[in-house]
Amino acid sequence: MKTIYYPEKNNWDTLCIRPEIDKTNLEEAVKDIIDRVRSEKDKAIRYFSDKFDRVIPCNLKVSQNEIMESIGLVPEELKKAINTARTNIENFHSSQLITEPVIETTEGVKCWRKNVPIEKVGLYIPGGSAPLFSTVLMLGIPAKLAGCKEIILCTPPGKDGKVSPLILYTAQLIGLTEIFKVGGTQAIAAMAYGTESIPKVYKIFGPGNQYVTKAKELVQRDGISIDMPAGPSEVLIIADESANPEFVAADLLSQAEHGPDSQVIMLTDNQALIEKVKKEIEKQIELLPRKEIALKALDNSLQILLTSLDECVRFSNIYAPEHLIINSSYAPLLSGKIINAGSVFLGNFSCESAGDYATGTNHTLPTNGFAKSYSGVSTDSFLKKISFQEVNQEGIKNLGPTIELLAEAESLNGHKNAVSLRLKNLRDV
Amino acid sequence: MKTIYYPEKNNWDTLCIRPEIDKTNLEEAVKDIIDRVRSEKDKAIRYFSDKFDRVIPCNLKVSQNEIMESIGLVPEELKKAINTARTNIENFHSSQLITEPVIETTEGVKCWRKNVPIEKVGLYIPGGSAPLFSTVLMLGIPAKLAGCKEIILCTPPGKDGKVSPLILYTAQLIGLTEIFKVGGTQAIAAMAYGTESIPKVYKIFGPGNQYVTKAKELVQRDGISIDMPAGPSEVLIIADESANPEFVAADLLSQAEHGPDSQVIMLTDNQALIEKVKKEIEKQIELLPRKEIALKALDNSLQILLTSLDECVRFSNIYAPEHLIINSSYAPLLSGKIINAGSVFLGNFSCESAGDYATGTNHTLPTNGFAKSYSGVSTDSFLKKISFQEVNQEGIKNLGPTIELLAEAESLNGHKNAVSLRLKNLRDV
Repeated sequence: MKTIYYPEKNNWDTLCIRPEIDKTNLEEAVKDIIDRVRSEKDKAIRYFSDKFDRVIPCNLKVSQNEIMESIGLVPEELKKAINTARTNIENFHSSQLITEPVIETTEGVKCWRKNVPIEKVGLYIPGGSAPLFSTVLMLGIPAKLAGCKEIILCTPPGKDGKVSPLILYTAQLIGLTEIFKVGGTQAIAAMAYGTESIPKVYKIFGPGNQYVTKAKELVQRDGISIDMPAGPSEVLIIADESANPEFVAADLLSQAEHGPDSQVIMLTDNQALIEKVKKEIEKQIELLPRKEIALKALDNSLQILLTSLDECVRFSNIYAPEHLIINSSYAPLLSGKIINAGSVFLGNFSCESAGDYATGTNHTLPTNGFAKSYSGVSTDSFLKKISFQEVNQEGIKNLGPTIELLAEAESLNGHKNAVSLRLKNLRDV
Repeated sequence: MKTIYYPEKNNWDTLCIRPEIDKTNLEEAVKDIIDRVRSEKDKAIRYFSDKFDRVIPCNLKVSQNEIMESIGLVPEELKKAINTARTNIENFHSSQLITEPVIETTEGVKCWRKNVPIEKVGLYIPGGSAPLFSTVLMLGIPAKLAGCKEIILCTPPGKDGKVSPLILYTAQLIGLTEIFKVGGTQAIAAMAYGTESIPKVYKIFGPGNQYVTKAKELVQRDGISIDMPAGPSEVLIIADESANPEFVAADLLSQAEHGPDSQVIMLTDNQALIEKVKKEIEKQIELLPRKEIALKALDNSLQILLTSLDECVRFSNIYAPEHLIINSSYAPLLSGKIINAGSVFLGNFSCESAGDYATGTNHTLPTNGFAKSYSGVSTDSFLKKISFQEVNQEGIKNLGPTIELLAEAESLNGHKNAVSLRLKNLRDV
């Protein structure tokens, strides 16, 4: 970790730029895969599964048998833990389902919005070193709460052609049964355009590597909606002398172990804490199975000393972190000043991993500074709000003359006429 | 308008495809302009304003004087009408600002979301044949209600180098004063990357022609957020024998006059209505100043006879119209079955132009079938919802063991360790 003392304010923007990722030829490579899946469908899926994942599943769809088998393969203790997380996520995400009032804006003119689920959604769960069943909960639960009719899940199979029982168990627990063994760009293309086995959806959710991210960006150009643009995961911790350096180090490391391109930032107004945390990191990192990954991520990472906690908050708002931990006894006060962040963790005992798994908040969050304009995934992400209006005879009498004037001023006489004819009709009656 | 009687169900998808627009070379042309604005900033803006709008404004920013002058140039009657629309839009859009509850998901674990305005937003108001001051209300009011700090507005000046007083009057009325004389692709590029005169924003809103739409798509790849993808405006009307054919014709024409690429669709279960509406269109179109535009739009348009109102709703859900008028005495009943639409108008007296201007709902809506996954612009569009969590000692004791198990099952031992250290700390105390 690089340490920076009192950086000049006009350098803050530069310090907030994320480490660059080499994307040479990325778009071209991804576009080729998408085009081929679009035209050759399942055949292309099998080709790319063989090429990239070294496996050609007999059936792309996970069978009911495979799903049932998974139930026996998950230890009871873990089942209980998954269920606790599920309950918290359900409780928090169902609180987001709010019915808005009907507003009578003018006598006889009623307006309202109605939550309507997106009919068909696709969830992507990456493969890789570990089965991310927690992401199944984070995407599947709000999709179910929203009431989406068709929810499909794509995830790459292991070399044995099977999907992890943890993913299957978690999926069936929350009622997802349309599961397909396909990963990477080919999974995104399949959900965007449909194949013989995999149905087309209207919106695609879920994390992934830079290929998946680029694929989501490309299919978006064809009108397929996506949850949000993505980049490597990151945490920013604001800590002061009240913070336990052991905890701060552990939180930095828990983010650093995500991937070599992760970035972790520590801001403080307390110079002594920088050294204490550094020592703790050196100690704790030795015990991590993913030490090598964490070390690489720390290479991209910063400890920054600033003059005050207020400065820390200002810096954090420029950085717009995916995860923000405020490890300070002033956390409640400081949290009111946060304007750009994905998810915020307040105080010494609110570690990021709590939110990653089980507090109830969502862990699919805007990275790469996108927190300046995007929210994390929530039940809202699986809904549209359709607006309705009902104008009765009284309403058109009251509001009609206003509309006529406005339409005429915009030279839209057809718009005016639609009102004038109705007003005339009411006068003639 | 083409008339189709009882189309086969397997043809419905094809009938719902929007008329194709020639986009040859569009991306390249737009990309060139964006790149040039990015590197040459104001100089490029002036160059393209001269090239496309045949005008080089002395100052890109509208002066306080110009704004003040506009107030004297708008007739009092029109001012009143604008104010009525403003009040309705404010009332409806402020009802969307809902504070969500704090949820204690586990004893000692509190989660909540907070509405935080997007700090910097840019509104684009197109030029063309008429000053679209109504769009200033539709974008500016929710931006103000959300509490966005920096709201800028870009709109192309006329050949006299001035912005319409109607736009300036409306903007100042709702508190917008950062107004820039720039249109088209160059306006979108300026807001996305910033120039000497025009500040960079985080999210760009507003309608425009295919150049503006493509520019918004392209800057989105650099992480600038946009309101939604766009296409030509459209209406679908479901009408039965209870509908007044005069009104149906007027509503179809009010959409057709928008642009030659607009599409209007009428669905009915009543064959006689098709002829009646056709005759009314022929009569009413003669009186429209924008007759030629409307005629071209009608060339793309359809009247379709189906066997029942339920079939009409099913077809409409496949089409996913921007505007849906249900002109039937069964409108309230049918409205419950609508799953894909931008804004819905119920009954004989709810004309689209009412919602375009003054009912209070927003008129910036998803076109081109995007209503399957997008909502129209609302106060939400100018906000992020940041999630917060506060886990106290009690909370980590209750939830910690669950998190440890879940993190371990995902092979993320650093995540586990952040919890274990805290639990150990509490045991040691």
